[in-house]
Amino acid sequence: MASWYLETGKTDGDIVVSSRIRLARNIKGIPFETKATDKQKQEILEKVKYITPSIGYGLQYFAMKDMDDVTKMSLVEKHLISPEMALRKDQENIGILLNKEENICIMLNEEDHLRMQVFSAGLELQNTMQLAIEIEEKMDEMLSFSCSREYGYLTACPTNVGTGLRASVMVHLPALKLTGNISKILHIVNNFGMTIRGVYGEDTKSQGDMYQISNNQTLGITEKEIISNLENITKKVVEQERLARKYLRKDPIELENRVYRSFGILRYASKINSEEAEDLLSDVKLGTDLGIIEELTDSKVKELELYLKPANLQKRVGKALTGFERDLERAKVVKQIIG
Amino acid sequence: MASWYLETGKTDGDIVVSSRIRLARNIKGIPFETKATDKQKQEILEKVKYITPSIGYGLQYFAMKDMDDVTKMSLVEKHLISPEMALRKDQENIGILLNKEENICIMLNEEDHLRMQVFSAGLELQNTMQLAIEIEEKMDEMLSFSCSREYGYLTACPTNVGTGLRASVMVHLPALKLTGNISKILHIVNNFGMTIRGVYGEDTKSQGDMYQISNNQTLGITEKEIISNLENITKKVVEQERLARKYLRKDPIELENRVYRSFGILRYASKINSEEAEDLLSDVKLGTDLGIIEELTDSKVKELELYLKPANLQKRVGKALTGFERDLERAKVVKQIIG
Repeated sequence: MASWYLETGKTDGDIVVSSRIRLARNIKGIPFETKATDKQKQEILEKVKYITPSIGYGLQYFAMKDMDDVTKMSLVEKHLISPEMALRKDQENIGILLNKEENICIMLNEEDHLRMQVFSAGLELQNTMQLAIEIEEKMDEMLSFSCSREYGYLTACPTNVGTGLRASVMVHLPALKLTGNISKILHIVNNFGMTIRGVYGEDTKSQGDMYQISNNQTLGITEKEIISNLENITKKVVEQERLARKYLRKDPIELENRVYRSFGILRYASKINSEEAEDLLSDVKLGTDLGIIEELTDSKVKELELYLKPANLQKRVGKALTGFERDLERAKVVKQIIG
Repeated sequence: MASWYLETGKTDGDIVVSSRIRLARNIKGIPFETKATDKQKQEILEKVKYITPSIGYGLQYFAMKDMDDVTKMSLVEKHLISPEMALRKDQENIGILLNKEENICIMLNEEDHLRMQVFSAGLELQNTMQLAIEIEEKMDEMLSFSCSREYGYLTACPTNVGTGLRASVMVHLPALKLTGNISKILHIVNNFGMTIRGVYGEDTKSQGDMYQISNNQTLGITEKEIISNLENITKKVVEQERLARKYLRKDPIELENRVYRSFGILRYASKINSEEAEDLLSDVKLGTDLGIIEELTDSKVKELELYLKPANLQKRVGKALTGFERDLERAKVVKQIIG
């Protein structure tokens, strides 16, 4: 099972970890999630399940209620489903359509009837958008999505009305953090009508120096404009990160010292928690991307990024673990992957 | 050149890094150092140099004024000469007798006319004392040492009068530090008529958890008693350190995590200063001594301990280095030794 998130993107794949397109859609004639009855939600699931084989892409239906907690959280860690979906008390009548490569994941009865997501490694917003639209059009033909002439696609939350499009990229910005420029960048991006935030934290506090940039406007703007704006701002951020990396390389010993010490701790620790692992891994990824750390490859860094996360660690080990057990297993998995 | 300090002592050699006997002696009829003229000091050197071949042991004379600063400091780091001797402004008329194995070093015109030192790895006070006395008797025959019937050997500083004997051991006490018991131990030892102090620091602050225990009484007590008292107290300290290690082993993961993280940093750092190296090495030595760290051997740890010190690092590299250059070379030497 070749998963997209273990591959390095062709375009700026070292800094842009992933691109994501999410389209919010609702089926005509059925009330939004907040108003829909259980029966109506079941109806949505049935309709979607019925048409799934004809959509193609290897999409398969999975009911949330049939998944154990670790599996759900492993999907959250891969950003395939929202934490809200995994943690919702009532797990009846929610589910996903997912393909083997896991680059397509459609959440059903989350905030909207359908939230269609397409993922790609690297900065690939246009291709990803194209695939998302292709899927959306096929489904629209069979399901008929709720759409107003004046507003565009109607969504449960007004912030998504219009295109119903949320495009985002996940970027790794360790050099901007190390040079003390990250706050400035966050400020600028937010002023450009985009939202940038730490993927696992809030604002400037980001675990592992991972940030998500996304559009916050969906109405009165075309899909093309959204994608193009996000692509442009992402390129600017990438450029700034590259400049910061160039600056750090002016003191190659300091940089090497930093990334290799983190590598040394990560490699030899017997016990390591998730937060520390993310932070060390950020240095290690930077060192590998810059060709400083020779012991690792891109794909091993990607594996580490995935399997050091709590739920995916447990999926790999094949059993549920306590926090303490996870910290021990995490150290073992590091050794397995580094080799 | 097999040096004693690269070997592990047979008796408690993991904890007792070294045993040292130092005998202060002055030649009859020549004033103490503080009162002796340059000419008299020259006379001492000439007398000693003259008899050196007949003493044996491969002893050779080295004038301090002929040594460069790095060489002098490398001898200080090996504890073969006192820092005072190396740093003294007037380097005329001082010198040492040293053998190839460097287990015998006789300082000439330091505080006393002769300070005869014999070293051994491990807890070997009796054997070391025996060798010291053997050398002392040979020299006494030829030089005739100043001795009073009432007080014993006369020395420049009254604290050495009597036996003129300073016996000491260097012990590695990381577990007593980690368990928070080191202050208590220092207090007890000092109350037993012994002096214990950090080898590179003061009181409880010891770089690398190395401590020196020595007798502070030289008068009104026989050599045998001094040796036996020091041996007994050292055995008690060793016992306490072993108990503390046993206690630490109750949480094997915590211990392994600590020593292996230090190993990881030491192994992969690109730049490392002397203090940090000593501290990391203390963990690494503990881990190796307890059989936790498998990547190292006793003798490699001994090599690291010697060559990470500033002057011996420069001796190994073969040239004088600035502080910054030393921090880089130190990291390289670690990699060379660990392999």
